[in-house]
Amino acid sequence: MLNIEEIREAQRRIAPYIVKTPLLRMPMLDERLGCQAYIKADNMQVTGAFKIRGALNAILSIPQEKLKSGVVCASSGNHGRGVSYGAKMLGIPATVVMPDTATQVKIDAIRALGAEVVSCRAEERFDVAEKISRETGAEFIPPFNDERVMAGQGTAGLEIAEQQPDLDCVVVPVSGGGLISGISTALRAAAPEMKIYGAEPARIPRYTRSLEAGKPVFVSFQKTIADALVSSIPGDKCFPVVQKNVDQVVDVSDDYVLRAMKLLLLTGKILAEPSSCIGIAAVLEGLIPVRPDEKVCFFVSGGSVGLSQLKVLEDVEA
Amino acid sequence: MLNIEEIREAQRRIAPYIVKTPLLRMPMLDERLGCQAYIKADNMQVTGAFKIRGALNAILSIPQEKLKSGVVCASSGNHGRGVSYGAKMLGIPATVVMPDTATQVKIDAIRALGAEVVSCRAEERFDVAEKISRETGAEFIPPFNDERVMAGQGTAGLEIAEQQPDLDCVVVPVSGGGLISGISTALRAAAPEMKIYGAEPARIPRYTRSLEAGKPVFVSFQKTIADALVSSIPGDKCFPVVQKNVDQVVDVSDDYVLRAMKLLLLTGKILAEPSSCIGIAAVLEGLIPVRPDEKVCFFVSGGSVGLSQLKVLEDVEA
Repeated sequence: MLNIEEIREAQRRIAPYIVKTPLLRMPMLDERLGCQAYIKADNMQVTGAFKIRGALNAILSIPQEKLKSGVVCASSGNHGRGVSYGAKMLGIPATVVMPDTATQVKIDAIRALGAEVVSCRAEERFDVAEKISRETGAEFIPPFNDERVMAGQGTAGLEIAEQQPDLDCVVVPVSGGGLISGISTALRAAAPEMKIYGAEPARIPRYTRSLEAGKPVFVSFQKTIADALVSSIPGDKCFPVVQKNVDQVVDVSDDYVLRAMKLLLLTGKILAEPSSCIGIAAVLEGLIPVRPDEKVCFFVSGGSVGLSQLKVLEDVEA
Repeated sequence: MLNIEEIREAQRRIAPYIVKTPLLRMPMLDERLGCQAYIKADNMQVTGAFKIRGALNAILSIPQEKLKSGVVCASSGNHGRGVSYGAKMLGIPATVVMPDTATQVKIDAIRALGAEVVSCRAEERFDVAEKISRETGAEFIPPFNDERVMAGQGTAGLEIAEQQPDLDCVVVPVSGGGLISGISTALRAAAPEMKIYGAEPARIPRYTRSLEAGKPVFVSFQKTIADALVSSIPGDKCFPVVQKNVDQVVDVSDDYVLRAMKLLLLTGKILAEPSSCIGIAAVLEGLIPVRPDEKVCFFVSGGSVGLSQLKVLEDVEA
């Protein structure tokens, strides 16, 4: 199982290439959220999302001679951006297999980093990526179910523990579980008293179902506004870490995700993609118990949003 | 002339009511701006703008018995919000005279704080406010040409010097000159080596004209996208401070203000109103010389923006 030493190694490995993102006190959000609100702003990370942490740690862990054939990944956007950025940095080719539901902003961002984009149906994206890996010899970089990737994401947890050690609670967006595995492993070692919540889209409740069943359970794909959180099953390397470390995972409705995005933008002055706002949404929806005296940190995972996507917020209750 | 002791007193006076806003390193902006970019995020201040600093210091300086009749001010938005917030806090009535060009977002924000809004043509707003003051006995709180107000704004400068003492340069939005008077007085005392630039709308170049003339000069009102920077003449208390402390004031075109706003939002992930982006715009337009090794801090003065105002960014080159 992932351990804190792997995360500390990852931090040493990727530190020269990434930034320590700010952890911000957000007093203007307190009244609406009913707690002392903080955000860990990984939407301000290099490439605009936390995914660069895990992708870089994975790529930098591969022996030099194996890298010549490049890397390939399947991604709804930010992981592909992280892999492409790492590949560009090392001067190796990258291919990113994207679901045909991905927004043009995310596709353009990956092409701008020099990677080749292959589009397919969301359900097929891992098969297509593995086929490319077999045919070209490119190293497959999994989006979450990989200890190198999980350790890389965990570096955000080390930063949280260092930047604000007196937090009562951290809320983390959940899809396959790579991010929350890494962050929870880091926090259980560095700040064992902090409560850790996961927030996933109610339309794809793979973690609540799996935690009930005691093993990874497949749920069918449903379209959700949280379009970076569309994994259908927990990673089998991630699941036991979440089972052990995380206090609760909650299922958040799309409606509240958009309300949270509007609140964070217009009141908090921070632009984040819908998936990144799901932790704030969970509190707005009343799914996570918080008190006015509690310090609650929301992990804001990415900021890949185009102006056209902001129009949908006009009809949303703030 | 305004001195550092008045600013230190203001800091003690207003500290319980405001937040120390974050000073953020913004690496994603470096390439486009050609420097190491920082922002002082006063768009995250209580009420969403720095104006609360000066308004509160002025209101808290008035003897209790004089306050019964309330306060009145003339404002294009953020100063009115600051005065209204301070008045509400002390339980006294407030009237805000607003130019008829003010956005609905700004009007609504002031009404939500319990103040009465009176609308008039921009050129008449000070006359109308002074008339109300005479008729009702309400204390007039000037937006900038007042040492209590200037001292309050200067508290942001004390914070900058404490948060990032190794900055090479600070760029401050300029209208009547209250903010840059306060910040420059604080920085000349606390960090004398920092260069200080002012940025004003090219359509209302009251400071460059006045600095050339050696005295405050009136320029005619012109509509500008930087709608919080519409003073027609430097304050006579502000002008000598700017003359003494500020390295240069530059005149920025509206086109670049919008480009800067789009860059700060989509790449920096920070929402700020157009006027607040004028410092970044000045560097984008090539008006302020910066180098890649220089640490440049942009003062982001406010964040009163509605979603409808973001539509205009769609046609702007980023």
